[in-house]
Amino acid sequence: MSKLVIVGTVAFDAIETPFGKTDKILGGAATYIGLAASQFNVDAAAVSVVGGDFPQDYLDLLSDRQVDISGIEIVKEGKTFFWSGKYHNDMNTRDTLATELNVLADFQPVVPTEYRDAKIVMLGNLHPLVQLSVLEQMETKPELVILDTMNFWMDCALDDLLNVIKKVDVITINDEEARQLTGEYSLVVAARKIHDMGPEYVVIKKGEHGALLFHNEKVFYAPALPLEEVFDPTGAGDTFAGGFAGYLAKSDDVTFENMKNAVIYGSTLASFCVEKFGTERMVNLKSSDVQKRLQQFKSLTQFDIELT
Amino acid sequence: MSKLVIVGTVAFDAIETPFGKTDKILGGAATYIGLAASQFNVDAAAVSVVGGDFPQDYLDLLSDRQVDISGIEIVKEGKTFFWSGKYHNDMNTRDTLATELNVLADFQPVVPTEYRDAKIVMLGNLHPLVQLSVLEQMETKPELVILDTMNFWMDCALDDLLNVIKKVDVITINDEEARQLTGEYSLVVAARKIHDMGPEYVVIKKGEHGALLFHNEKVFYAPALPLEEVFDPTGAGDTFAGGFAGYLAKSDDVTFENMKNAVIYGSTLASFCVEKFGTERMVNLKSSDVQKRLQQFKSLTQFDIELT
Repeated sequence: MSKLVIVGTVAFDAIETPFGKTDKILGGAATYIGLAASQFNVDAAAVSVVGGDFPQDYLDLLSDRQVDISGIEIVKEGKTFFWSGKYHNDMNTRDTLATELNVLADFQPVVPTEYRDAKIVMLGNLHPLVQLSVLEQMETKPELVILDTMNFWMDCALDDLLNVIKKVDVITINDEEARQLTGEYSLVVAARKIHDMGPEYVVIKKGEHGALLFHNEKVFYAPALPLEEVFDPTGAGDTFAGGFAGYLAKSDDVTFENMKNAVIYGSTLASFCVEKFGTERMVNLKSSDVQKRLQQFKSLTQFDIELT
Repeated sequence: MSKLVIVGTVAFDAIETPFGKTDKILGGAATYIGLAASQFNVDAAAVSVVGGDFPQDYLDLLSDRQVDISGIEIVKEGKTFFWSGKYHNDMNTRDTLATELNVLADFQPVVPTEYRDAKIVMLGNLHPLVQLSVLEQMETKPELVILDTMNFWMDCALDDLLNVIKKVDVITINDEEARQLTGEYSLVVAARKIHDMGPEYVVIKKGEHGALLFHNEKVFYAPALPLEEVFDPTGAGDTFAGGFAGYLAKSDDVTFENMKNAVIYGSTLASFCVEKFGTERMVNLKSSDVQKRLQQFKSLTQFDIELT
């Protein structure tokens, strides 16, 4: 088992979907990543920042699951990052209704001393300079650095983002973002271009259409579980990344073959995340639920053609 | 091995994609289905109609591959069905530029006597009444009837279409058509509603996102092979259906488990079809190419997580 450092937002979200709306609830990339990774009982630490308005209960959700929160700075006089969004009927697109950076505006991440030798670093969605700062604090070179990002940083901090991309081993990015980053429509070509930017492994997330893992000329495809209803897609991408990172930290094997399994775990956990609003499903998720759904993933994809 | 009856158009197509355009070339659902099914050396017969303008060479392409063409009527004084379309840059949408029914307008299909006991019937995309007429000519109840259709018939012949759907075992349909037919966005719910209309097996084709096979509560997912370039999507859906039907006819096993393999074969053959304009890739396809690509499908999807 490897130590895992997670950096990302810990936030309040207010979400509206065709199925209803929420008040301010627990959200943030590091939250979703941490909850997903905690399924593997790994030794993880979250690096983030919240305001004095952030409930201790929410922090306890992470620490109860053995996610070290000593790297989550609490700015007593500040307010927690807040995001609000509304999903369209197809659930694949959304409008951002509000983004209040608050304490995130001046965030200087500090990796706890005892995690500066972590073998796996998961850079969740945040300003690329914050992600970079976390990398620079690592005292031994991590075995694997995973980066998640979004189009927002391509629009407003592209040079910084490219600089981080250069330094990571794995990038997880969605299909439209991969196209934006490379100017290529074909995901195969886009993945190759991103590969040339630095990452040896490129994971392209396609939402309800699953995820692709590229490594040199190899490619692996994990479907999303076909669901009757996607209740709330918020956090699905972070949950995917958290499952991916958590599985790799637990299994201590960062080969392409094992990353296939990590992608399947990521997809499996993401399939739970979207079943309820926010983190609700993830905080109530049992290991037996996960095992059962992995079996569904196997039935969904495994076939038995004998080749001649 | 089971006899296979294929009904569908045999046509001229003129295609424009971002990569170029063609004059009138060989096309039609029965053509693509026949070429795909011929990969399995099955005893197949095509039922269709062409005009006096249709080159013997094109018919020979099918008969050379052991597809019986005695059920392809030649109306000497008539003109062959012609379709022309232009694909948009994303290759997922297209405009129809011309549709000239010609001899198709009065087509009365005749199933050759020696194929009226075929175990498998593949009803390719055509007017539902033509599909129905083929079914009615079968002298023994087929083991499996597969229907492919499109939104056009939902718009202009819905009652007839529903009447055929009632009588088939498998339907292959694309995602948007499944949504149109049922009014449901979720493909899981749409598949269930289509199942209630008659077919025990529902295959939803998602183009570059693969295909889903539903049977009661079971579901199987075959990805599309990630390709650098989709050169021309024309005929991919028919090729999928032809591979599906051909494999089932060859293996003589119409269980859900074996249909998984049939879906993989269909996806594999479709992945070749889109590599060149029209039927060009399919007429030059070798069995060794297919085996190699099946291996790629295995690598693409198979993983090795042990469940506890």
